[in-house]
Amino acid sequence: MTPGSDDPAPRRRGRPSRGERAAGPDTRTRILEAARTEFAERGYDRTSVRGIAKAAEVDAALVHHYFGTKDEVFAAAVELSFEPALVIPSILEGPRQDLGERLARFFFGVWENPVTRAPVLAVLRSALTHEAAAKVLRGFVLRRLLERIAADLDVPDPTLRAELAASHMIGIAVLRYVVGAEPLASADPEKIIEMVAPTLQRYLTE
Amino acid sequence: MTPGSDDPAPRRRGRPSRGERAAGPDTRTRILEAARTEFAERGYDRTSVRGIAKAAEVDAALVHHYFGTKDEVFAAAVELSFEPALVIPSILEGPRQDLGERLARFFFGVWENPVTRAPVLAVLRSALTHEAAAKVLRGFVLRRLLERIAADLDVPDPTLRAELAASHMIGIAVLRYVVGAEPLASADPEKIIEMVAPTLQRYLTE
Repeated sequence: MTPGSDDPAPRRRGRPSRGERAAGPDTRTRILEAARTEFAERGYDRTSVRGIAKAAEVDAALVHHYFGTKDEVFAAAVELSFEPALVIPSILEGPRQDLGERLARFFFGVWENPVTRAPVLAVLRSALTHEAAAKVLRGFVLRRLLERIAADLDVPDPTLRAELAASHMIGIAVLRYVVGAEPLASADPEKIIEMVAPTLQRYLTE
Repeated sequence: MTPGSDDPAPRRRGRPSRGERAAGPDTRTRILEAARTEFAERGYDRTSVRGIAKAAEVDAALVHHYFGTKDEVFAAAVELSFEPALVIPSILEGPRQDLGERLARFFFGVWENPVTRAPVLAVLRSALTHEAAAKVLRGFVLRRLLERIAADLDVPDPTLRAELAASHMIGIAVLRYVVGAEPLASADPEKIIEMVAPTLQRYLTE
């Protein structure tokens, strides 16, 4: 669409040019949102920095400038939706006997919203087929999310238990949102939360 | 290796020729095992009937002759390892209070053995990225495995509950065998079975 968006990312003036649109705080977000969409729709393998740049209507050099390599764009795109620093306290706060339910609600909140579903779906798809993406999942989801939750638990093997809880939610995501297995795919989220919360609660507190 | 294995599958004499090795009961199995390995190693997208034929050292026409399309080879390769007619009775028989444990043991039996892990890993990877493979998963795993288990359960929403149990095992497979999330990836299977069995038991019987 924009002139130059098909260019093979020429390195003009040794620094990324401001491209066809002005760079600024919005440019970074626009690149991340384009990256999210590209990774989610095409998968890790078929997504390129140049494709992300094109979707964001910026020069590819600007993508490299803000984020570095494709893996680093991927990690940033994934992290954008979670904001673990905000999310984790809100899950851990509140009565301990409702922890499983709060975790289940957080999970369905992310997956039922198409905007936040896209990047997590991208991680899931990519992690299953590409070691680079699996590494992002290990590093981000596990280290940053689960270990911080585990640190707050008063059970033996807290990280293992947090992983078992996470594995259940990951599997539900696979069957409900990706595979579309019925009746799970069409079940009311409230009904699933009611059935799943005691499982999460048991892993995290008993 | 074998002469002609690089040929673009010429249709000789209108029927698949017996190729470089004699066709027979072993040929079908050899093709399926090659298909299993190819799908597991390359993923659904990058696996071709010709590649499977080459790995099995047969003519591609023979693969089509025995199985039909790529999707049909895929379905057969997946089914080979499960043999649901044998597996399901052995899970359902025995004391009902150990059903969760038997299911967990069956699951780890499949995944801990590299020979049977390959095809299920292929299904999982492929189902997340290709609708054709997702359809195989819905049709085979869900209809043939879960609904038959569900038919034997004495709980409300038996299929939904069987799917929740399956989702937990699928998620464990993702984190333990694909992503390699620690400590789950290195944990003793017996320890995980002990932790997971009560969850499966609750879904299936309570």
